Amino acid sequence: MTAVAERYVQALNQGDLDAVMALFAADACVEDPVGSEPRRGTEAIRGFFQRVTSTPMTVVHDGEPRAVANEVAFGLKLSFTRDGKHTTLSVIDHFRFNADGDIVAMRAFFGPQNIHVA
Amino acid sequence: MTAVAERYVQALNQGDLDAVMALFAADACVEDPVGSEPRRGTEAIRGFFQRVTSTPMTVVHDGEPRAVANEVAFGLKLSFTRDGKHTTLSVIDHFRFNADGDIVAMRAFFGPQNIHVA
Repeated sequence: MTAVAERYVQALNQGDLDAVMALFAADACVEDPVGSEPRRGTEAIRGFFQRVTSTPMTVVHDGEPRAVANEVAFGLKLSFTRDGKHTTLSVIDHFRFNADGDIVAMRAFFGPQNIHVA
Repeated sequence: MTAVAERYVQALNQGDLDAVMALFAADACVEDPVGSEPRRGTEAIRGFFQRVTSTPMTVVHDGEPRAVANEVAFGLKLSFTRDGKHTTLSVIDHFRFNADGDIVAMRAFFGPQNIHVA
């Protein structure tokens, strides 16, 4: 599960949509951010990550991943340019896995106070 | 929600069981660690935190709390002595709140690889 978190970080850094999608089960659910309408299934999730991966960004871990049972939670810092300003987003991602090691549920925790504009 | 996370950290540092319990709804559910049998209701939760708060520990934040919708996720490092050895536990806690601002669900993410023995 820690390896999947690592591949997710790497795929975001490379803007590699296919590498992101390879981590998810076909019937996965993505709630990003928490509180938003969840996206269910490959098509909806691919549409979401197409937008994410089309933004050049630098993603680094923020603390060690916490993997337990069939879940992992881990902090990330995503840096990118928005409206000409250097922006850093501090997120905690939560993945739940199926028996095949695919992500079946992903939730991203961040609120307005976790968006830092330089 | 960030303030509740702060009070939780403070209460653990002070070993203040009543201060911890004041943060939880009567029908709350605590799953600590994730994957363990959840403890439901004040009595079971109090029994759990009685053991936690009877261990002198130093608790510091590990990254900024991520609060969104009615939930917060935040990293912690808990340091204490176990079997005569300085031990640090890196946790990500997840709280879900009711409309009164009480915690109704708490889950603590950490696995064996998040236990660091000096």
